[in-house]
Amino acid sequence: MLPDDLATQLRLWRRDFHQYPELGYLEMRTASTVASILHGLGFELQLGKEVMSEENCMGKPSEEETKEHLEWALANGAKERFIKPLSEGYTGIVAKMDFNQGGPTIAYRFDMDALPIQESKELDHFPNEEGFQSKVPNHMHACGHDSHMAIGLGLASWIAQNKRHLQGTIKLIFQPAEEGTRGAKSMVEAGVVNDVDYFIASHIGTGVPHNHFVAGNNGFLATSKLNISFHGVASHAGSHPEAGRNALLAAATATLNMHAIARHADGASRINVGELHAGSGRNVIANHARLIVETRGNTSKINKYMKNQVTAIVAGAAEMYQLQYKIETVGEALNCHCSRDLATILNTCAVNHPAIINSQLESNDSAGSEDATYFMERVQKNGGLATYCIFGTDLAAGHHHERFDINEASMLTAVEILSQSINDIILMHSS
Amino acid sequence: MLPDDLATQLRLWRRDFHQYPELGYLEMRTASTVASILHGLGFELQLGKEVMSEENCMGKPSEEETKEHLEWALANGAKERFIKPLSEGYTGIVAKMDFNQGGPTIAYRFDMDALPIQESKELDHFPNEEGFQSKVPNHMHACGHDSHMAIGLGLASWIAQNKRHLQGTIKLIFQPAEEGTRGAKSMVEAGVVNDVDYFIASHIGTGVPHNHFVAGNNGFLATSKLNISFHGVASHAGSHPEAGRNALLAAATATLNMHAIARHADGASRINVGELHAGSGRNVIANHARLIVETRGNTSKINKYMKNQVTAIVAGAAEMYQLQYKIETVGEALNCHCSRDLATILNTCAVNHPAIINSQLESNDSAGSEDATYFMERVQKNGGLATYCIFGTDLAAGHHHERFDINEASMLTAVEILSQSINDIILMHSS
Amino acid sequence: MLPDDLATQLRLWRRDFHQYPELGYLEMRTASTVASILHGLGFELQLGKEVMSEENCMGKPSEEETKEHLEWALANGAKERFIKPLSEGYTGIVAKMDFNQGGPTIAYRFDMDALPIQESKELDHFPNEEGFQSKVPNHMHACGHDSHMAIGLGLASWIAQNKRHLQGTIKLIFQPAEEGTRGAKSMVEAGVVNDVDYFIASHIGTGVPHNHFVAGNNGFLATSKLNISFHGVASHAGSHPEAGRNALLAAATATLNMHAIARHADGASRINVGELHAGSGRNVIANHARLIVETRGNTSKINKYMKNQVTAIVAGAAEMYQLQYKIETVGEALNCHCSRDLATILNTCAVNHPAIINSQLESNDSAGSEDATYFMERVQKNGGLATYCIFGTDLAAGHHHERFDINEASMLTAVEILSQSINDIILMHSS
Amino acid sequence: MLPDDLATQLRLWRRDFHQYPELGYLEMRTASTVASILHGLGFELQLGKEVMSEENCMGKPSEEETKEHLEWALANGAKERFIKPLSEGYTGIVAKMDFNQGGPTIAYRFDMDALPIQESKELDHFPNEEGFQSKVPNHMHACGHDSHMAIGLGLASWIAQNKRHLQGTIKLIFQPAEEGTRGAKSMVEAGVVNDVDYFIASHIGTGVPHNHFVAGNNGFLATSKLNISFHGVASHAGSHPEAGRNALLAAATATLNMHAIARHADGASRINVGELHAGSGRNVIANHARLIVETRGNTSKINKYMKNQVTAIVAGAAEMYQLQYKIETVGEALNCHCSRDLATILNTCAVNHPAIINSQLESNDSAGSEDATYFMERVQKNGGLATYCIFGTDLAAGHHHERFDINEASMLTAVEILSQSINDIILMHSS
Repeated sequence: MLPDDLATQLRLWRRDFHQYPELGYLEMRTASTVASILHGLGFELQLGKEVMSEENCMGKPSEEETKEHLEWALANGAKERFIKPLSEGYTGIVAKMDFNQGGPTIAYRFDMDALPIQESKELDHFPNEEGFQSKVPNHMHACGHDSHMAIGLGLASWIAQNKRHLQGTIKLIFQPAEEGTRGAKSMVEAGVVNDVDYFIASHIGTGVPHNHFVAGNNGFLATSKLNISFHGVASHAGSHPEAGRNALLAAATATLNMHAIARHADGASRINVGELHAGSGRNVIANHARLIVETRGNTSKINKYMKNQVTAIVAGAAEMYQLQYKIETVGEALNCHCSRDLATILNTCAVNHPAIINSQLESNDSAGSEDATYFMERVQKNGGLATYCIFGTDLAAGHHHERFDINEASMLTAVEILSQSINDIILMHSS
Repeated sequence: MLPDDLATQLRLWRRDFHQYPELGYLEMRTASTVASILHGLGFELQLGKEVMSEENCMGKPSEEETKEHLEWALANGAKERFIKPLSEGYTGIVAKMDFNQGGPTIAYRFDMDALPIQESKELDHFPNEEGFQSKVPNHMHACGHDSHMAIGLGLASWIAQNKRHLQGTIKLIFQPAEEGTRGAKSMVEAGVVNDVDYFIASHIGTGVPHNHFVAGNNGFLATSKLNISFHGVASHAGSHPEAGRNALLAAATATLNMHAIARHADGASRINVGELHAGSGRNVIANHARLIVETRGNTSKINKYMKNQVTAIVAGAAEMYQLQYKIETVGEALNCHCSRDLATILNTCAVNHPAIINSQLESNDSAGSEDATYFMERVQKNGGLATYCIFGTDLAAGHHHERFDINEASMLTAVEILSQSINDIILMHSS
Repeated sequence: MLPDDLATQLRLWRRDFHQYPELGYLEMRTASTVASILHGLGFELQLGKEVMSEENCMGKPSEEETKEHLEWALANGAKERFIKPLSEGYTGIVAKMDFNQGGPTIAYRFDMDALPIQESKELDHFPNEEGFQSKVPNHMHACGHDSHMAIGLGLASWIAQNKRHLQGTIKLIFQPAEEGTRGAKSMVEAGVVNDVDYFIASHIGTGVPHNHFVAGNNGFLATSKLNISFHGVASHAGSHPEAGRNALLAAATATLNMHAIARHADGASRINVGELHAGSGRNVIANHARLIVETRGNTSKINKYMKNQVTAIVAGAAEMYQLQYKIETVGEALNCHCSRDLATILNTCAVNHPAIINSQLESNDSAGSEDATYFMERVQKNGGLATYCIFGTDLAAGHHHERFDINEASMLTAVEILSQSINDIILMHSS
Repeated sequence: MLPDDLATQLRLWRRDFHQYPELGYLEMRTASTVASILHGLGFELQLGKEVMSEENCMGKPSEEETKEHLEWALANGAKERFIKPLSEGYTGIVAKMDFNQGGPTIAYRFDMDALPIQESKELDHFPNEEGFQSKVPNHMHACGHDSHMAIGLGLASWIAQNKRHLQGTIKLIFQPAEEGTRGAKSMVEAGVVNDVDYFIASHIGTGVPHNHFVAGNNGFLATSKLNISFHGVASHAGSHPEAGRNALLAAATATLNMHAIARHADGASRINVGELHAGSGRNVIANHARLIVETRGNTSKINKYMKNQVTAIVAGAAEMYQLQYKIETVGEALNCHCSRDLATILNTCAVNHPAIINSQLESNDSAGSEDATYFMERVQKNGGLATYCIFGTDLAAGHHHERFDINEASMLTAVEILSQSINDIILMHSS
């Protein structure tokens, strides 16, 4: 039902993105390329601050870093026509296409950012063999978002080709900064899914094999990503120890007490002080400390409990040592409950796909955290249906690994299942 | 110059007190006995709340405990005539005698309380040999305050005998609750030394041998005695751990951070969480914790620094776990600088005493903490002179030891030096 | 099928036990009474060390306490004929009755100990109304073990009456010290269920209402009850702080780090330092500290992980401060998986009982911890079947509450279900 | 008595060194320059491993860093003739001159290393005004060691000029890596002062004003500089927290307990965890942690106590979390007691010097820590005399400040006092 050469096209798109990995909120070459293609297919585009709430952008890089990257993007193939609205680091895209009235509004979300990982230089790493490895040192599409965008563009192609047969409205959402669960909330708060009846997010891999499918993944943990800092007063540790206000001791105390937060009876919780950096010299009472922290919970309520405890502990540690402190939320995600009716449609699409060996309606396997959950919560709150599905693929190495790679053949199946879901949703909606 | 039998009398007094040890603020039998003797010698007495500021009584026992002890005192020889003003635990005494006008006001301070220590039952312990051991289980005059009172009463006898030759006014201060540095501040705040020109406190022993003397001891550490409590919320540790507010964890955190208070460049400091008691069951999140703490410092400023840090740490630990907390100051003392002019007089008295082998004008040996320092500070602030002297004696075992005992012969020398100091102070004052 | 007056008899037994509550390993009046009745019914008895492994008695009271209690028991109605083997605190009973060969060996376990709780003195508390309240201050059957024993004796009566119709062997196990999960392991290690084919433990209440039943309760958490102590060196905190080895600081450090033990991905875990007691005086570096601790886990493996971490943390804290330490396991229990085949039999018995409104085959509701799990594990390891069932009853207040009380009518139903289970097990076994 | 132009020469030397600051063990350009001048003056030289014990070089940079610096030094004026023995970072020099037999062996020690500080770029900073500011970014002679070397070379010039009048042997010791108290021990262990009768170390400034002098400074604190690391096991904080071995938590625990080390009754102590760096990502259980620590003590015994406690605490923290750990001593110094007889000679030299306004025989002012104390201890152990003197100067800003600068005129006076001391020591020695 799709052009013979779509598989080839998907591979070309994916490999292009793979060579130019960009970190969250810096997907300028990436997003302008995506926008250019979608524009060519006839979609109506909204970019940048139109689809992102500035005050809800968590964990955004500094203005300086953003400016610097803009220059890099322009020098590396960014499409100038679309770069303006993306240039301050608001790199989200909503591509809309309206059909006959009376139909549903369906949204699909794809994420675009890469990771600060150095891609393997081993010769037998497939991207090296095929010559499409990352051109950027210490940056890599090691989670598959390159393929997500290819799938999204493949879906867009199908939509463009079949627009005469469709009803309602379709929105394709290309989200920045999924890594660290940072970018989704900003798009949700800008209202981009307020009118959506059906929402589908998806991921490739995550342990599900090639030609397997999960229609509704409920295993995400709610999470908060927190950057915490303490600021005190330095003093010579030998001659005036009493004059210092010791940020390092406060950080050590806060760390221990954060890890000692009581377990929650309602379900799993997590806390990790992943990094602690404090002090500026052996003989100086440390006047600054920085902690890189995350909390998680089976439910958003449990995660909220964890975050509240962290807040109290940090405030208390600061009071102990009479310090200033700052708690910055640089990422956040919710847990989710996929809408069974929508998952059932996806499941049927997969079951009926000739290549699919196995399709699972629902899964509770823990698959980390995802900020697509913000979209899902908003849609469900408004009475819509939402689900999160997984396209199986065979991985060369786990997500976030320097040798991560997918089976590119999985992309075509993904596009076909998503395409079919449009038909089935419109059908269900009208019935 | 004193009656031949004074040595005998001193021994009798001391041994009587030794048999009836009473803890701080409960010296009812003791103080009523002292009052009775001083009254007999012609002193004008002020007792109880007249000489003690209620709101400055630190570390006073509960009303219940006080009432209970009153009954014991009445059953064990308390003088009923003087018991009324002492009955609520305000057991201080100021005994005054006025002479010819124009002379100085001189005050001598003696302390009266015993310790919660079980006296040794070994047969060769001198009080056992002589049959004057403590009659009260777990209570003992193990610091020599029994002898201090005997010396005070000996001095009173000398004053009464010599009153025609004296000028000015003499005040004998019998202070409760020196142990834990609790009782002095209350008497100072009641104003009992506001009119004093010369103030002399003294102690027996403290490592100085029999027939040795120290005229001005400056080695006292300022100190604060703090009772700290945290109050949280209990919860079943298995079924609802998240519902608790854990006072035990706050106490543990506060303890570690208190001991980690930075050293002070200006001199020695000390911190000790001597006791920690928390929780009420293995499977219950602890909702209460109690810490028994002391700080010390070479100077009052350093001790204040320590106390301030403790306060901040406790407040911070409470905030961490969202608890109520209380910091009660149950004892406090200052450091001191003996007035050299007054110490010189005492030193001369000692040097001229035939029994004294060695007299030291000033000493900085650390001798713990002493709340007589409150009296000294007040007198010096008002322009008067103050000193703290030590009467050497040979100890059977260290202070606060179950076999503590003194050489009773040291008491007579002490009385003679103090008597002579009255003469010399009056002489100096008039010159 | 049972004598008309069994309901009355159950009430009498239960109320007798209720008036004489005895703590774990001290059930001397209780166990001798139980033994006397079982003997009267014709059971063959094994008592004391015959059925308890001395070295596996966790959390046993001191010899002194045990001796003292023996006197109390003898003065309060203990049966002298059976007291000898119980007199050292080995208070377990196994009562056996053999029938025709060829049948199965079936065991039922009942627990006997009471709690250190003061029973409510409120007049409308049912035991007060009926005059069978606890005669022992601060001791109370507040968990229902009095009714467990009554049920056990009721079952024994039925067995005695029906012995001609039965096959195989029946063992009634009366276990001491279930509270704190202390006593079961000792009986298991003595081998009392080594020959058992079917094992049934049971509890009344735990949130299940009157005339409801649970045939297989799987919700128990594995647990370890640990008493931990540190021993250091005392020193004067003012004059020789460096000479101390501070047990209180080690305890505080261990406490924080125990609570900070990482969560386990496989399921729920728990840690609680419920009590901490350390130190002997404000100005003394604390030389001893005692912690009352428990760990729990969804599975025995998780609980083992927690216990291992505790062990490492305590050893490390001791090394930090160069202390001696001791970790005593004073209670322990496993998690369990009820044998579905046996639970099905129980469930059928309940479903067929005219009074039962609702019966549940399996439940995963967390119901704390239970050392009957040791019996279950041993029986299942040997190829037998085991289950833990719950007899619903209406509670006046929760377990371990001072106003705890049951609906006594629930006892008769319990006996009837258990009686029927014997018939059904024999039937199944022979088929 | 010295050539008219010595003041000028001193300035030239100092300014040359000032422009090429080199860190400890990397003083290759510096030491080769010093060696070249001393050689020209007729001294017999020993360089590198001849005068430094390899295994006692504390805190030496890596081989790679050393090699890299060698290239820099060669490109920036290092004297190739002398570079070979210095090229591996053993940059110490002993320059010896022998005179008539029978005289004493006198040693003077000068230190050579600079600091990792960016020199001020403010125009009114004197080295900027005069154009001799540091040519190396982030490196600066901010402690005055440039002037120490100039003084040493000035002294060498005087010795060369006066050699016919001298007796015995003179050794000029140029020590690397005094900052961080790293380099001295290595020279002492190589035996360079084993034959020394009189040893004099010196410093410029330290708060003593121009034309003031201190002949014996006793205020140094013994110290240990410790680099501590923990190595554990990383794990994903969300999916397998229990599989990690958390180095960050161990570091936090160790930090708190190190700061809580009990004060020492014998004198001041210090502890500082100046830096803590741990972990590699927000969602990873940290598997490494690094602490930058120092201890100090009024006496070497107290410092040893502190170091022992640190060692026990780190070992305990590692045991808690089952980690590997390493404690590296990267610097160490003793306290000192200047020999009064030698200080008296220096004091006399100063008193007799026309420019000196004030000379102090002994001072106890705390002046940080100094590893010259190792030389002093060795000489005194062998029966020799040792002192540490201070040449006053007016500082533009404190030591280690980016605007640090001295009054260059102080250097000439220093050379003259040291020169005179040679005469006086020889005189005293022969008498």
